Amino acid sequence: MLSTLVTGMAELITCDGTGPDGLGRRDRSALVAEDGLIGWIGPASQAPACDRRIDLEGRSVVPGFVDAHTHLIFAGDRSAEFVARMGGESYDGGGIASTVEATRAAGEDELRRLLAHRVAELRRQGTTTVEIKSGYGLSVTEEVRALRLAGEVTSETTFLGAHVVPAGADRADYLTLVTGEMLAAAAPYARWVDVFCEPASPHAFDEDEARAVLTAGAAAGLGLRVHGNQLAPGPGVRLAVELGAASVDHCTHLSDADVGALADARATTVATLLPGVEFSTRSPYPDAARLLAAGVPVALATDWNPGTCASSSMPFVIALAVRELGMTPAQALFAATATAAASLRRTDVGRLVVGAPADLTVLDAPSFTHLAYRPGVPLASALELPG
Amino acid sequence: MLSTLVTGMAELITCDGTGPDGLGRRDRSALVAEDGLIGWIGPASQAPACDRRIDLEGRSVVPGFVDAHTHLIFAGDRSAEFVARMGGESYDGGGIASTVEATRAAGEDELRRLLAHRVAELRRQGTTTVEIKSGYGLSVTEEVRALRLAGEVTSETTFLGAHVVPAGADRADYLTLVTGEMLAAAAPYARWVDVFCEPASPHAFDEDEARAVLTAGAAAGLGLRVHGNQLAPGPGVRLAVELGAASVDHCTHLSDADVGALADARATTVATLLPGVEFSTRSPYPDAARLLAAGVPVALATDWNPGTCASSSMPFVIALAVRELGMTPAQALFAATATAAASLRRTDVGRLVVGAPADLTVLDAPSFTHLAYRPGVPLASALELPG
Repeated sequence: MLSTLVTGMAELITCDGTGPDGLGRRDRSALVAEDGLIGWIGPASQAPACDRRIDLEGRSVVPGFVDAHTHLIFAGDRSAEFVARMGGESYDGGGIASTVEATRAAGEDELRRLLAHRVAELRRQGTTTVEIKSGYGLSVTEEVRALRLAGEVTSETTFLGAHVVPAGADRADYLTLVTGEMLAAAAPYARWVDVFCEPASPHAFDEDEARAVLTAGAAAGLGLRVHGNQLAPGPGVRLAVELGAASVDHCTHLSDADVGALADARATTVATLLPGVEFSTRSPYPDAARLLAAGVPVALATDWNPGTCASSSMPFVIALAVRELGMTPAQALFAATATAAASLRRTDVGRLVVGAPADLTVLDAPSFTHLAYRPGVPLASALELPG
Repeated sequence: MLSTLVTGMAELITCDGTGPDGLGRRDRSALVAEDGLIGWIGPASQAPACDRRIDLEGRSVVPGFVDAHTHLIFAGDRSAEFVARMGGESYDGGGIASTVEATRAAGEDELRRLLAHRVAELRRQGTTTVEIKSGYGLSVTEEVRALRLAGEVTSETTFLGAHVVPAGADRADYLTLVTGEMLAAAAPYARWVDVFCEPASPHAFDEDEARAVLTAGAAAGLGLRVHGNQLAPGPGVRLAVELGAASVDHCTHLSDADVGALADARATTVATLLPGVEFSTRSPYPDAARLLAAGVPVALATDWNPGTCASSSMPFVIALAVRELGMTPAQALFAATATAAASLRRTDVGRLVVGAPADLTVLDAPSFTHLAYRPGVPLASALELPG
């Protein structure tokens, strides 16, 4: 077991909750990683001897990003749908159904190869913890396959059989399947259950249906997550709070009552915003400043999926949050790390403290503020520690 | 002199002007590079034997991006000014004057080191041709130093002594200097002269002053570029067209007469849009669709500078152009390559044709449309050919 001293940091941001913005900023510090864990953090002048040394030569370090909302296990390409949408065309290329078809048709080796490529792409952009949803299988066999493969790369696996009602299926029959046989088969491979609660969409689920999915998931031992209030005001946030979900995601269209409910549930339910979706669908952005002013914990994630946000970049999401959602760079970084971890009920990731995994993300910049100041520039990457 | 066969491309985009969108898209093609030039393009099945072979394994190739508007020779950091601006504070941190002070204080080795780091960052993002402006020296010695150093990394050097009137200087005296002694000293190191024509700004130059700068520059043998119509309607575009400038940059606030003048001057003057500025200053975007509909040649560039756009990412600019400026992905790519080259009066770069430099940018994607479809993701990088 080799120890590694990380030194030469212009700025070390721990997101440990200390300091005026919770960022736990430390200057002239060093860090020791040992066996994949953080063994020591302190003044560089007092750093202990280690087997190896990495000199970051004036770069900065932040906690590895926690991307707590992705759909990254899929096959097929929907860029043509994006191009048509940007051109104002109504063409929909088959939407989610086309991804379901392509994913079902893909062999297991192909899905595993795509998954590995995408996880590597995430790490190159500084993301070290990722949640992965199923939801492009929509049959017992295919949902289980997706979750089993996702479980090979992350412990944060989410059963999203209730993504949409599959083409040609009877709503009531599908709901019975999702809350019964499919859930029973999927639960051993999932930590979470999620539902696309959006009465405005004919493909998604209304309040009663979503409640049925979530209560069945909870009974099967799964934690709760909700897609809510993305396209229009609706019951998603209210339901998430009522049932004690760990996160309600999107939160683009909120009533004052929704914001109040999230504020009251602040110890339980995080509001996870996904502004890459609004960028890629040319839609109005959610209002993070309103939520933060009310005391609601706000997380940021990509929603990486082939239809409405094909970006896997947490730095891009941070830049959008500052430009479009009313967040400061400090709030956006905290949302992409510590609060994102809270949305997964995790305290071991999203912050750099002794005993936690050494999930360090290096920025080629003198300060974390460059994540917003330098949009689109690949400044962030996960530090690969020598074995 | 070794030849290299580049093969395995999902898509080769030449931007040679052929095809419905000018992109010259070729499928199942291969390319031979020899001595830094493109020696052959044709069907992969007919590729000649070469000394080496690079198999891109399903990635795509586009012409290296041409970033025809940057201010990347500077020292100092103005991220705090950006953070304050995003927070709605009026703090201005000294603006351009603070960069002038830091740049003057920097040693030549330090400026050279910063420049090399920035050029490497550009190449990692797929930019292979860069224009660099002076304008943070604002004295004879300092402007010459900046241009001399810029000339070590690019032939596209632009004398921008008329960036702002330096703090404490008399306007009329400074104009005499910029059009006289400073121009004479700078001209041997510059290909272009540029002026920040913006009567709405007390630091910039009005129509008569800008005309004096440009006519003096032309008399000294320099090509003309103009910063115009960025902050408000004004005379910049009109003046650029009148004097036959190669490019007028920003073009955010245009009258119908401006658009008409640009359309009439289409063989001479390119409109270069810089949407990273509007992103980073939370300002209204220019309207590319309006210009394109009128037949105006539109280029895209970053404006990489420490104050109003610290992004060096042409892929980010392309994504913004599609989201915010009304361009299709094809129009945006053409604007970032072939038309950007035209704004520098170049036909050898910005397109991949036999005899041109082998400035290939590789995309980790099956199609160039992914530059807009996958915003923020580092898909593009300049291909480093073996010697």
